[in-house]
Amino acid sequence: MKLRDFGIQDGISEVIATTMSKEGMPNAAPIGIISDKKICARIYPDTHTHSNIHATKKLVANVVSDPLLFVSSALGDLDEREFYTVDELPVLRCADAWVSFECEKDKQDNTLIHLHPIKGRILRKRVQAISRGTNAIIEATIHTTRYLAMKDEKYLEWIAHYEDIVKKCGGCREKEAMKKLREIIQ
Amino acid sequence: MKLRDFGIQDGISEVIATTMSKEGMPNAAPIGIISDKKICARIYPDTHTHSNIHATKKLVANVVSDPLLFVSSALGDLDEREFYTVDELPVLRCADAWVSFECEKDKQDNTLIHLHPIKGRILRKRVQAISRGTNAIIEATIHTTRYLAMKDEKYLEWIAHYEDIVKKCGGCREKEAMKKLREIIQ
Repeated sequence: MKLRDFGIQDGISEVIATTMSKEGMPNAAPIGIISDKKICARIYPDTHTHSNIHATKKLVANVVSDPLLFVSSALGDLDEREFYTVDELPVLRCADAWVSFECEKDKQDNTLIHLHPIKGRILRKRVQAISRGTNAIIEATIHTTRYLAMKDEKYLEWIAHYEDIVKKCGGCREKEAMKKLREIIQ
Repeated sequence: MKLRDFGIQDGISEVIATTMSKEGMPNAAPIGIISDKKICARIYPDTHTHSNIHATKKLVANVVSDPLLFVSSALGDLDEREFYTVDELPVLRCADAWVSFECEKDKQDNTLIHLHPIKGRILRKRVQAISRGTNAIIEATIHTTRYLAMKDEKYLEWIAHYEDIVKKCGGCREKEAMKKLREIIQ
């Protein structure tokens, strides 16, 4: 099984991880799949993703291109209607592809999870030009989560930098996503 | 003809413009296709793209995902073997899709070119996760061209910022592209 066929490339691929709680509640949050010689991800304790992985030992990597979904899943909860279930695992309806993984905690590093692919599906292939606006939303979302956690003003400067790129290069989904980020920050 | 089907979305899409000189020499350079109510692009005078458009009134927008190709075409000339010809227009071999346009200069704004789609082809659809490394190469390339034109040190700081993202998140193509950028800057 080649992860590249499912859109996961060498380096870090930004995907939305979906996991199921012990009680059967789906959760979604952006993560980076690190694909070097081995596949792994850094998942911080005190997150639903981390506790769900602890409970079920599984996650699904959803390859998604909508910037608004990165914002919504990073900084809030997705509506249950956004998910469906495959083999008792939650998958996002809007995913272009997904891969399910068996998760194994690193023995030394508490945030590092080793990922072993179980299976995957390709649902939609497309042609897509690079969009600086979409990319700026991903960066602005990362800096927003850091700002909310650490309250360091330097993150606000980064957010403003990426907001300028969104204003100049973004389409309507990116502008809506940026508006949502601003509402969360204020 | 819907440009979205060819990967060109609302907002600005980063593509590689290919044009033919009066003498039949192909040229490639990154541009942003601005897709709002109308389709246009900003193309600076003193570029091959600008003089070729003046000569032939046409350009081809190539939708490409390889970060190295953005660097090579922004800061040097592509090898002739990278092109083939369709209707006397150059197209990139590695394009996932391309759209040819009739070009019309704006009457007031010397850098603004209005674009009227002629025809397009989809050659390869794929699934692709968002890559912060690829995106960082696009930004670093933009700041490198600005630095080379204006020699303002602030651009070097931006390049260093994006280089950090490439080191952390990039795959081998991104790392090779960043190395090429560094060679050009030094």
